[in-house]
Amino acid sequence: MNTNWLDKIKWTEDGLVPTIAQEDATGKVLMFAWMSRESLALTVKEGKAIYWSRSRQKLWRKGDESGHSQIIKEIRLDCDNDVILIKVEQIGGIACHTGRHNCFFQRLEDGNWVNIDPVLKDPADIYS
Amino acid sequence: MNTNWLDKIKWTEDGLVPTIAQEDATGKVLMFAWMSRESLALTVKEGKAIYWSRSRQKLWRKGDESGHSQIIKEIRLDCDNDVILIKVEQIGGIACHTGRHNCFFQRLEDGNWVNIDPVLKDPADIYS
Repeated sequence: MNTNWLDKIKWTEDGLVPTIAQEDATGKVLMFAWMSRESLALTVKEGKAIYWSRSRQKLWRKGDESGHSQIIKEIRLDCDNDVILIKVEQIGGIACHTGRHNCFFQRLEDGNWVNIDPVLKDPADIYS
Repeated sequence: MNTNWLDKIKWTEDGLVPTIAQEDATGKVLMFAWMSRESLALTVKEGKAIYWSRSRQKLWRKGDESGHSQIIKEIRLDCDNDVILIKVEQIGGIACHTGRHNCFFQRLEDGNWVNIDPVLKDPADIYS
């Protein structure tokens, strides 16, 4: 298997690369996470977003618990070869563990963070 | 000045927060960089994106050299309070130091990173 494309990436000291997930159809930024070399290779192989969970120190197959997986439409690399942008189809229309469409639901308004996006599904029902 | 909104952010050990810049009008992701507490406070105060350059270890007023500043339209915070998304107007239509619209111009195609977006302006002319 050709791994030149993986070698081109400038991994952090921890062997990770910051990854932005964007909804392909709407352009909305869904979430930000990290990928390891293994998780990115698996992402490409399986066509689904597979991250590296820094808190749990293991592969994080997005949607394995929630069903809210992310189908890969496109993978991009930035000019410094150290940030990944994936364009995805968000299964279930929910990327965030809070049950919202995406994770960036807090907007700064007059010096306060205000929740402006609705909870689409109760997390208790997502992770039951 | 109310700084509660700054205190809510979970800064890294280095005192930074990863920041995604998205073009407000098109939804395109322009770049990824880092902000310090000071740079984010200045970003809000001045209404322009001001990052923290980790390589140069100083404030990076985006556009100071290139003229390609970023006017803040909206600031968002993610569910874990540790990632910022700014929606901006990209002055000059060029966010990347390579002279391209945005930094994510390399697309993975059959195991190769392919440059798919055009250089709009020669960097030699941008940073002369």
